[in-house]
Amino acid sequence: MPPAMHITGTTRIYALVGDPVRTAKSPGLLNQVFIEHGADAICVPFCVQADDLPAFVMGARAMRNLSGLLVTMPHKQRMVDCVDELDATARQVQALNVVRCQDDGRWIGAMFDGVGCVLAMQWEGGYPANKSVLLVGAGGSGRAIAFAVASAGPQRLTIFDVDEGRAHDLVDAVAGATGCNTCFGAPDPQGYEIVINATALGMRPGDPMPVNPDRLEPGGFVVDITTAQEPTPLCRAAQTRGCRTLGGRAMHEGQAVYTLRFLGFDYRPNGKSASPIGLPSVPFDERKF
Amino acid sequence: MPPAMHITGTTRIYALVGDPVRTAKSPGLLNQVFIEHGADAICVPFCVQADDLPAFVMGARAMRNLSGLLVTMPHKQRMVDCVDELDATARQVQALNVVRCQDDGRWIGAMFDGVGCVLAMQWEGGYPANKSVLLVGAGGSGRAIAFAVASAGPQRLTIFDVDEGRAHDLVDAVAGATGCNTCFGAPDPQGYEIVINATALGMRPGDPMPVNPDRLEPGGFVVDITTAQEPTPLCRAAQTRGCRTLGGRAMHEGQAVYTLRFLGFDYRPNGKSASPIGLPSVPFDERKF
Repeated sequence: MPPAMHITGTTRIYALVGDPVRTAKSPGLLNQVFIEHGADAICVPFCVQADDLPAFVMGARAMRNLSGLLVTMPHKQRMVDCVDELDATARQVQALNVVRCQDDGRWIGAMFDGVGCVLAMQWEGGYPANKSVLLVGAGGSGRAIAFAVASAGPQRLTIFDVDEGRAHDLVDAVAGATGCNTCFGAPDPQGYEIVINATALGMRPGDPMPVNPDRLEPGGFVVDITTAQEPTPLCRAAQTRGCRTLGGRAMHEGQAVYTLRFLGFDYRPNGKSASPIGLPSVPFDERKF
Repeated sequence: MPPAMHITGTTRIYALVGDPVRTAKSPGLLNQVFIEHGADAICVPFCVQADDLPAFVMGARAMRNLSGLLVTMPHKQRMVDCVDELDATARQVQALNVVRCQDDGRWIGAMFDGVGCVLAMQWEGGYPANKSVLLVGAGGSGRAIAFAVASAGPQRLTIFDVDEGRAHDLVDAVAGATGCNTCFGAPDPQGYEIVINATALGMRPGDPMPVNPDRLEPGGFVVDITTAQEPTPLCRAAQTRGCRTLGGRAMHEGQAVYTLRFLGFDYRPNGKSASPIGLPSVPFDERKF
């Protein structure tokens, strides 16, 4: 009997909430994990527009068999006000990517975009401990990555954003929370062992490069969170310079490890380690499925 | 690849809404039909308590990829106030079992419990045209069945309920709407070709019989909408008297034919006719899947 037939009145619902959701990959990934675990659970996409989030949340709280929400654009920031509790990273970043809907009715939010990125960097040999790191982009994703990179103990972390005030705010927050050697600086990759693009540059054809690839250090490590192309234009240029690279897809796999563990599932993509070193541990949902 | 893996960002959501939903069979049935049709659609159960219905509806209206709701206890009556339009049967019965969520945002409610029952009677050779019919129970299900039986043109329709006022109200409404020869009468099955139990008697062990089976006409046709046992105590006693019988499961199959057609899917259980004679036609949802 095919797995879709296993949906019954006892099935737990996990929902991806965003707009648009048409190209979302998470439901497929989660359902694969549920099948592998023999879990009576299913992930379905809910297309919810930005202004409809409060109404959606009211309805979702009325669904007693809803066990979790994957939260994507444009709701990552506004969902923070809709949960009962935030984990430390979500509090720092003031955004979340997952909500655990507990049996007692409490919603717990967490943010794994940053630690997921660092986990993927670890998988590819680009763990930032004791390294010099340049982060370009201090928006939602950049914020999440900055806290996670800083928690891994880099030698120094430089943050740039075209909105300099936003970059300075993030520098102060990260330095205060982690004690990491953090400063504002130009988007010049020369002298950095690790360069991370957390801007949207690269999503549209003809976008300028977020940094000048001619000034990347040969042998360095370049991370690009954009997903429109794989490899991205920055990654292609970096490979030409002799750099190792990491694209948005690997980062999503790292994030999925944490997100699924937070929801109670042990996910190890291709046998990769799910026990990252130096990263915050994730409270495991002890409910049995 | 198993069908559950086909859930992507483009998948249309159909939800069963009720409380409890743990024993619900509809998600399994609908998902089987979706697979047979190659439809990018899935049916999932949402457990929503009675008092939470208004909140749930607010949230569900914010889900732009929600295409339909199967509505079960305890929401069949109260959902009437939550839709934009009712089909004729839902207006008469003042209850609904399905909502079509249209692309223009309008919710259309319909009630197929009654016509589904009559379609199942037709499958089993108990079509009520020109027959004498005794209906016991004038609650939600009895109301739906009364209008559907009356529309099929019985020779006469007698309605009984322990709440005599409720039975008289239904007699008046059915006679006024259909012109059927309808009256209030005792729950004595003698002299009736068709006897229908639309009460909950038979759901719990030790329930009294809704009618005295010793007075059933041999060769008659007995319908029992209860589903706790199959065959029900009434059906077992009727079979002993030489009656043909129809249980709640067949009635649900008949209802599913109408419900799925209303949602745009052609469902023919075991090759049975989906073109009932003498019953109201169902507006077909012309969206392509």
